[in-house]
Amino acid sequence: MFEAPRGTRDFPPWEMDKRRYVEDKIRNTFKIYGYREIQTPTFEHLQVFTLKSGDAIIDEIYSFKDKGGRDLALRPELTAPVIRFYVEKLQMEPKPLKLFYIGNCFRYDRPQKGRYREFTQAGCELIGVDTPEAIAELIALAYNILRNIGLKNVDLHIGDLTILSTLFKKLGISDENKKEIIPLIDKEKFDELYLFMQNIGVSKDEIEWFLDVLKMDDISKLPVSDEIEEEVERLKDVFGFLRDIYSIDCKMKLSIVRGLDYYKDIVFEIEAPILGAEKQLCGGGIYELIPLFGGREAPSAGFAIGFDRAILAAETEGYRFPISTIDYYIIPLSTSLISKSIEIAQILRNKGLLVDVDLMRRGIGKALKYAGSINAKQTILLGPDELDKNAVTIRDMVTGEQKLVLIEELKNL
Amino acid sequence: MFEAPRGTRDFPPWEMDKRRYVEDKIRNTFKIYGYREIQTPTFEHLQVFTLKSGDAIIDEIYSFKDKGGRDLALRPELTAPVIRFYVEKLQMEPKPLKLFYIGNCFRYDRPQKGRYREFTQAGCELIGVDTPEAIAELIALAYNILRNIGLKNVDLHIGDLTILSTLFKKLGISDENKKEIIPLIDKEKFDELYLFMQNIGVSKDEIEWFLDVLKMDDISKLPVSDEIEEEVERLKDVFGFLRDIYSIDCKMKLSIVRGLDYYKDIVFEIEAPILGAEKQLCGGGIYELIPLFGGREAPSAGFAIGFDRAILAAETEGYRFPISTIDYYIIPLSTSLISKSIEIAQILRNKGLLVDVDLMRRGIGKALKYAGSINAKQTILLGPDELDKNAVTIRDMVTGEQKLVLIEELKNL
Repeated sequence: MFEAPRGTRDFPPWEMDKRRYVEDKIRNTFKIYGYREIQTPTFEHLQVFTLKSGDAIIDEIYSFKDKGGRDLALRPELTAPVIRFYVEKLQMEPKPLKLFYIGNCFRYDRPQKGRYREFTQAGCELIGVDTPEAIAELIALAYNILRNIGLKNVDLHIGDLTILSTLFKKLGISDENKKEIIPLIDKEKFDELYLFMQNIGVSKDEIEWFLDVLKMDDISKLPVSDEIEEEVERLKDVFGFLRDIYSIDCKMKLSIVRGLDYYKDIVFEIEAPILGAEKQLCGGGIYELIPLFGGREAPSAGFAIGFDRAILAAETEGYRFPISTIDYYIIPLSTSLISKSIEIAQILRNKGLLVDVDLMRRGIGKALKYAGSINAKQTILLGPDELDKNAVTIRDMVTGEQKLVLIEELKNL
Repeated sequence: MFEAPRGTRDFPPWEMDKRRYVEDKIRNTFKIYGYREIQTPTFEHLQVFTLKSGDAIIDEIYSFKDKGGRDLALRPELTAPVIRFYVEKLQMEPKPLKLFYIGNCFRYDRPQKGRYREFTQAGCELIGVDTPEAIAELIALAYNILRNIGLKNVDLHIGDLTILSTLFKKLGISDENKKEIIPLIDKEKFDELYLFMQNIGVSKDEIEWFLDVLKMDDISKLPVSDEIEEEVERLKDVFGFLRDIYSIDCKMKLSIVRGLDYYKDIVFEIEAPILGAEKQLCGGGIYELIPLFGGREAPSAGFAIGFDRAILAAETEGYRFPISTIDYYIIPLSTSLISKSIEIAQILRNKGLLVDVDLMRRGIGKALKYAGSINAKQTILLGPDELDKNAVTIRDMVTGEQKLVLIEELKNL
């Protein structure tokens, strides 16, 4: 017997119903905000990913040679492919370009709860604009997608890498030391950070001031020096739009570093606290990748949502996704009535109703049991008595109520 | 600059709109017939495919080793993965199981018109039943999916491998010779077939009789011997349901062999004559794979539709797929009106309308040009004069007509 490869999943109908429902919600929300869908291949030239993330990523992805000797890789994420697509084919399109995607990605990761080797990401890229209203709209979109999926409690935090860099500069921290410091900030290991900064000769007062700023969640309290005045004003505008116009609760968090070096300026994260350690659902911000891929410089920002984790969070909160049903299950009570049953099925199907017919020539008991198992809302029984009256018996599967309905009248159901 | 890998495609928004439209039509038609969607991983253990199709398939697929040394392959088709899934996890589900899928597949093929290395297949498997009404419904479903996509002219042909085998037996053709003959029948090379059969000692009369039967398109004229009487009756029932109940025009074609050795009994193909040599859109039939994958024997049948080719056929026939539009594009006429514009956007978005706001602080001329480029149906202009009246100007992008509408009234648009 064969099994699905380790870390991958098979989705039975009751899982797919949920996934398609969530996918539709996400797609619809993107469209409501004027985003348009694109799609890229499942694999890319390996360099597309090493260029963006460095050679270290090779250890974490599925890479292989095709029969022509090309180095290819199953995509581990979608920003690099989208930027590759943009530079190759979409640079001449009117700006801004608001592009979204929903696609599967692959990582050769240790499988664990909520982490799979094949998983789905939904995200977008906004190319050609980085005004505060554009970034606020982007963040509001990410937030509203998660709310529209059914999530109740999500925390939105916004940081700014330009401000963070200025703080580093102010404290005289070298690029080399930054490499040590950033992961500590990212993981909020503030005690370790304290010790490290002490070791590299930052004064106690300065360290405490730095940690205070990192932990500050209200932008209005941020100490503003000349170098960052403009950036702080921009960030304040983004907060203003989000809080006052979009009515979204959000907090500043300068310790967001996104662990990736192509982000710059404003970055953000959305978390579902109910998921504990695996709570991050969405990350994004302003980034610079287009010139790296050979394109003409243009502002760009985007985000990605972990599709599987977002579903998990909504379910953990108790959200119940709608279950697929079938409108009618038709049971012919003898083989001579099969043709008539199919005829009736076609009348109802032509109206767009979801209809199944018993195909196994089985008794009414078994057929009704099967109808229950596929969540049929109603069954239609067709026997010789019914046919004599040019009618069928319709049975409500919840109440058990039965009524005789003329076949002529089925068109008006 | 990087390019998408050879034989793969990037889909810009105007292509994705079409693809999602077709996908929805297909999904909806499957559901109307009581089928339920499933999904399997993008890659499988290599043996899943070699078991079904033999080792020769390795030359045509993307296979690779993962970092754990497992032999994996990107799926070249979806029947084998679905049967693997069924045997592994769904054998205990109530029968019949009506499962459908829409997914991408991969073949290391020479790229050519309508043939890609990554392509989409839509298909289904019906497990647990093979009554004539079940097979007729399956075939009607395939036909109606293609019609619902927008295709006008499709030819449906139905063959029967049990009948074909009986003909071979009647003519005393050895298994070895069958291997030579089947590809000739498949490609309808009847002249070569004639010569080959002559060479292996079949009499002229018998060859002519055999070719006549192969070319026969009306089942009522089929010469019926005792051995095939039952199978012919079954096939006649299928034709009867399709023609009389489903009103589908279909022809018998015993030369359909599907080139694959796991098919048996009834097989069918649907073609779009407008596509010439690449006309086949759909193939399917009754097959036996479950025991091969270690499952308990159960009747099974299914079909697969070439998604890309079906779209190509509809477009070649002149079908115009709907184009995505945006309901409103909002243009603030000064930066001080940006907040108010977003407020208006949110009123309309909350009604489910597709709304975009100018995010680039540009002049009205450029903004209107952009609105045209993204197919906005209407633009909303917000200037100081409008705001004084608590109103906006709505401009119809087709007629150019403008009207003043109170912001209060936008909720009722």
